[in-house]
Amino acid sequence: MAIVVQNTARAPLQVVDALARHGVATVHEAQGRSGLLLPYMRPIYKGCRIAGTAVTVSIPPADNWMIHVAVEQCREGDVLVVAPTSPSDAGYFGELLATSLVRRGVRGLIIEAGCRDVAELEQMGFPVWSRNVSAQGTVKETLGDVNVQIVCAGQAINPGDVIVADDDGVCVVKRESAEDVLVASQSRAEKEAANRARFEAGELGLDVYGMREKLAGKGLRYV
Amino acid sequence: MAIVVQNTARAPLQVVDALARHGVATVHEAQGRSGLLLPYMRPIYKGCRIAGTAVTVSIPPADNWMIHVAVEQCREGDVLVVAPTSPSDAGYFGELLATSLVRRGVRGLIIEAGCRDVAELEQMGFPVWSRNVSAQGTVKETLGDVNVQIVCAGQAINPGDVIVADDDGVCVVKRESAEDVLVASQSRAEKEAANRARFEAGELGLDVYGMREKLAGKGLRYV
Amino acid sequence: MAIVVQNTARAPLQVVDALARHGVATVHEAQGRSGLLLPYMRPIYKGCRIAGTAVTVSIPPADNWMIHVAVEQCREGDVLVVAPTSPSDAGYFGELLATSLVRRGVRGLIIEAGCRDVAELEQMGFPVWSRNVSAQGTVKETLGDVNVQIVCAGQAINPGDVIVADDDGVCVVKRESAEDVLVASQSRAEKEAANRARFEAGELGLDVYGMREKLAGKGLRYV
Amino acid sequence: MAIVVQNTARAPLQVVDALARHGVATVHEAQGRSGLLLPYMRPIYKGCRIAGTAVTVSIPPADNWMIHVAVEQCREGDVLVVAPTSPSDAGYFGELLATSLVRRGVRGLIIEAGCRDVAELEQMGFPVWSRNVSAQGTVKETLGDVNVQIVCAGQAINPGDVIVADDDGVCVVKRESAEDVLVASQSRAEKEAANRARFEAGELGLDVYGMREKLAGKGLRYV
Amino acid sequence: MAIVVQNTARAPLQVVDALARHGVATVHEAQGRSGLLLPYMRPIYKGCRIAGTAVTVSIPPADNWMIHVAVEQCREGDVLVVAPTSPSDAGYFGELLATSLVRRGVRGLIIEAGCRDVAELEQMGFPVWSRNVSAQGTVKETLGDVNVQIVCAGQAINPGDVIVADDDGVCVVKRESAEDVLVASQSRAEKEAANRARFEAGELGLDVYGMREKLAGKGLRYV
Amino acid sequence: MAIVVQNTARAPLQVVDALARHGVATVHEAQGRSGLLLPYMRPIYKGCRIAGTAVTVSIPPADNWMIHVAVEQCREGDVLVVAPTSPSDAGYFGELLATSLVRRGVRGLIIEAGCRDVAELEQMGFPVWSRNVSAQGTVKETLGDVNVQIVCAGQAINPGDVIVADDDGVCVVKRESAEDVLVASQSRAEKEAANRARFEAGELGLDVYGMREKLAGKGLRYV
Repeated sequence: MAIVVQNTARAPLQVVDALARHGVATVHEAQGRSGLLLPYMRPIYKGCRIAGTAVTVSIPPADNWMIHVAVEQCREGDVLVVAPTSPSDAGYFGELLATSLVRRGVRGLIIEAGCRDVAELEQMGFPVWSRNVSAQGTVKETLGDVNVQIVCAGQAINPGDVIVADDDGVCVVKRESAEDVLVASQSRAEKEAANRARFEAGELGLDVYGMREKLAGKGLRYV
Repeated sequence: MAIVVQNTARAPLQVVDALARHGVATVHEAQGRSGLLLPYMRPIYKGCRIAGTAVTVSIPPADNWMIHVAVEQCREGDVLVVAPTSPSDAGYFGELLATSLVRRGVRGLIIEAGCRDVAELEQMGFPVWSRNVSAQGTVKETLGDVNVQIVCAGQAINPGDVIVADDDGVCVVKRESAEDVLVASQSRAEKEAANRARFEAGELGLDVYGMREKLAGKGLRYV
Repeated sequence: MAIVVQNTARAPLQVVDALARHGVATVHEAQGRSGLLLPYMRPIYKGCRIAGTAVTVSIPPADNWMIHVAVEQCREGDVLVVAPTSPSDAGYFGELLATSLVRRGVRGLIIEAGCRDVAELEQMGFPVWSRNVSAQGTVKETLGDVNVQIVCAGQAINPGDVIVADDDGVCVVKRESAEDVLVASQSRAEKEAANRARFEAGELGLDVYGMREKLAGKGLRYV
Repeated sequence: MAIVVQNTARAPLQVVDALARHGVATVHEAQGRSGLLLPYMRPIYKGCRIAGTAVTVSIPPADNWMIHVAVEQCREGDVLVVAPTSPSDAGYFGELLATSLVRRGVRGLIIEAGCRDVAELEQMGFPVWSRNVSAQGTVKETLGDVNVQIVCAGQAINPGDVIVADDDGVCVVKRESAEDVLVASQSRAEKEAANRARFEAGELGLDVYGMREKLAGKGLRYV
Repeated sequence: MAIVVQNTARAPLQVVDALARHGVATVHEAQGRSGLLLPYMRPIYKGCRIAGTAVTVSIPPADNWMIHVAVEQCREGDVLVVAPTSPSDAGYFGELLATSLVRRGVRGLIIEAGCRDVAELEQMGFPVWSRNVSAQGTVKETLGDVNVQIVCAGQAINPGDVIVADDDGVCVVKRESAEDVLVASQSRAEKEAANRARFEAGELGLDVYGMREKLAGKGLRYV
Repeated sequence: MAIVVQNTARAPLQVVDALARHGVATVHEAQGRSGLLLPYMRPIYKGCRIAGTAVTVSIPPADNWMIHVAVEQCREGDVLVVAPTSPSDAGYFGELLATSLVRRGVRGLIIEAGCRDVAELEQMGFPVWSRNVSAQGTVKETLGDVNVQIVCAGQAINPGDVIVADDDGVCVVKRESAEDVLVASQSRAEKEAANRARFEAGELGLDVYGMREKLAGKGLRYV
């Protein structure tokens, strides 16, 4: 297609920020165990927990031209989400592009491909979740699309969706359901806090969750 | 089968603790280069070196119900060892289960699948060696077995066997041969210490191990 | 063949050291996006940036005998580069061999296979880029070659070539072109520094690189 | 969600059948090199070329309950498209389900997981494109969804979209654009037929496509 | 260890032959969905369905010496099962070894590694299930074991166990339970035959298996 | 670089044709177990055994422009060998290019990437060994090189080298040593024929190769 969709709707940032605090595992559970990107998406350094609104980029293999186009579409609170149209492990992204994104308030990059300058990116504090690390250069020859629906690491992602990312991986929350998922996340977090106290006190999951009867009913035998 | 074997015999803890000090590489060599799990089993954080007695769990893909059952079978000095009956990268295990295991004196988890809450687990100091990291949730619907022989990452593991794990990976020592392997490990460690001193002094392995003649006999030529 | 080539020519160390400062991403770009090893070659710990002259080892699967032979051929400023003749993830290399290499002034190891004793190697400060970590032991039964052309992780490497390695991966520079690549690297680094200042000032890549016209010419549409 | 969407709109069968005749490579090119599923989706036997309208199934790992639900939603000209919510290589599908689908006029199965009874399926003439072959059984415990948008092997697929599959792989055509893609496919096929005649006559692609000048302009040198 | 266990007990051949007729999918289900080797074990050619009693070989990576030793331990009705002590894709086996095995009445080879001469093996009618095809040669330098417990493609296999193999993969049946599994297989086959008739008549699995109520109870909604 | 080297020296065709008759396994052994490409290079259909002289193509990821350039450099008896500069599974090659190559007397294609139109290629009788099958289209934007040294599937290949390919995989023989390897292949084939007769007569490898004493010397025990 080769189009750039401008001024896409985004989930509200106060919802996004609240989702960030819950983290990937909780948000993923809270929305019915959906939305998790494949686990080969790993952070280039540990200890970050972010959320942001997706600016999506569909890009040819080993060609990073459209990332430059996408930077202009980014604003405060965004996360850039990039997927090639056929698999590539090339290093599409490094510190110069990160410098540009930091200036625009972008919180991180999700790329189903390679990333380079990882030492510099850690020093800058710009987090990236990528399929791999690679210094392999790319060309700037072929167009792609910005802010269309893409599939990244097994999930369909629309522009404006919420991306939550931390050491456990990356999760997408549909823009329309962000507030509902936040409510469900808070509810889950409270329930988990209560359960944590019981586990710390030495209670077993078998009792906390009342599993013994159901297990016996399915035929579990102790020998 | 769906059985839980209780009160299994375990290798003695003083042997287990002594094996931990030797670490995976030495123990693996000392028992004749056997028992090493496949190298895709990686620690979720670096710097741990543990040993413990195996409580084994055979578990359906993407279903962590039996881990809750297994917790009750664990005691001081154990390591939980989990393998799905068909491959799965789901996140079977997180900080709530870890809280429960810590209370029972369990030293770590070996799981041929995914693990989540990895930042929290590192903060708690609960080490996990897993196939991958994933927040992907699991169900609690189907039974499995606790404390039966399982195959985990290419090794047959029986309940009560010794698990040694560190940054180099994971190794299993049969319960019956734990003391022999400890003796062999100590012997190897002493020999290595002596060799290390010679290497530090600048001697070559060619001379330390007396290889030159055998190499020439095989036909090695210097040009 | 089973030969050891002695006294191979090497790239001059002052060129090697200067290439190290530029790092993998810059050097790889400066020589026309060539020479990068496949991205499964990863450092066993983060934060190293080295360069050295290659001593190459072609070695049988799961047999590390020839590494001992190769140590004797190493000298100040070298990097040992090892590739098996068929794929292997065994742990060919550990701290004893590293002790020997450190004594000879070797700067690191590149091995398209497994490495062990990774905690000890990090403590020693001896960097390794490997395909995986594994404690799996090897035998010493079959000959190979030292200082012949090898293919390691997708690149042909000749003895004396320059190896540059950092957190982004590993790159080889042909011995004959090392000085040219250094000049090109310096030129590229200067250009990047100038661009970095413009990005920090908020300019976009679209303008810094003058891309808007070419994009429009290819048919990019904004909607 | 656990919903079954009934009576979804489908692309018209005469368009579907015409797309089948063009095959995957042509259709994929005709719609701008998009829509191709990842190449690990392979036919269980060679020589089939089909197209059909998608009935989609989102299914838990190693649980094939919802395929039984989906069968009832299938009708003449459909192709069943199944993707698990987290990766699984279990054998979700065999000859009994195929017998049922054949009765309903279903033309084949696309499943991002395992398939079994492959000898029997070939005898029946029921084609399957799957990630792998496996006899690993599945359970029937957990709900999923039928006829919602799914991601299968890297492509978002909606119910009623056209699936084209042959020995080259699997391609999805959006329902709304099926007729346009058919027109483009016919046009491409005609152009290819003309070019084929020129190639058979010994002309080179360099001349047929008029590439020599552009190559020279980019700097290609003959030595 | 380096031992050859002679005259191991084997499952009775009339049971083995009857299991062969049921095939992998049925046998695997009949023994409670256990015993299936990982699905990367594939036949080198299609259309074989065999069963035999296991002669097991634990073998070093890229060293096929012990296969020659194992041949002498084979007799009518056996299947040779080979696993390396660390992963290897070398071509351990070709037509000369097959010639020898055919003479002894061996029915096939299961090898978690590479196999070569595949065209010749198909001509001879000697089936092999392997991890991959490779002409990569092996050495004859290091001992292993014959007829000890091994782990092959994720399953523990004891000498004398029954191996069933066909186009769906490979399954192991414990020697002690072979007759029980045969009874269960026959029972399952009869049930499947009855169900097949109902599916052919157009009944749905939803009704054949009485699933509608349970689905509704779990909350499935039709929209 | 972007160069096309013309009129490269080639191994003599009568040697090439004789090597083809020996096949990959024999040739690979005869040249000291070297030159085998990684086993992920598989034929798109079974039953071909070819040899030819290499025309090499170094090509950008997902860009097949240079294949068109290379066609013009091909002549009777050649095999086209293509490797991308970074990994790609795109479908670079289909029946139109094959039509052109057949006209020039080219015997087959070796491509470390994807191939499409596989049904048509089998009908034409044009064999391809590729990393995968994919209909994924490529662009024609970026230059590469023809007839320079490339690394393809783990082997360095020079223009004019002999490529041998069959169902066991692909092997390269250096142009300079083609005649020596042919002599060694003939010698090996004769020895194998003699051994085959002894195996058919029921002799064991243990005796044919005189292994019993060496095995006992290494410590093998029969129990």
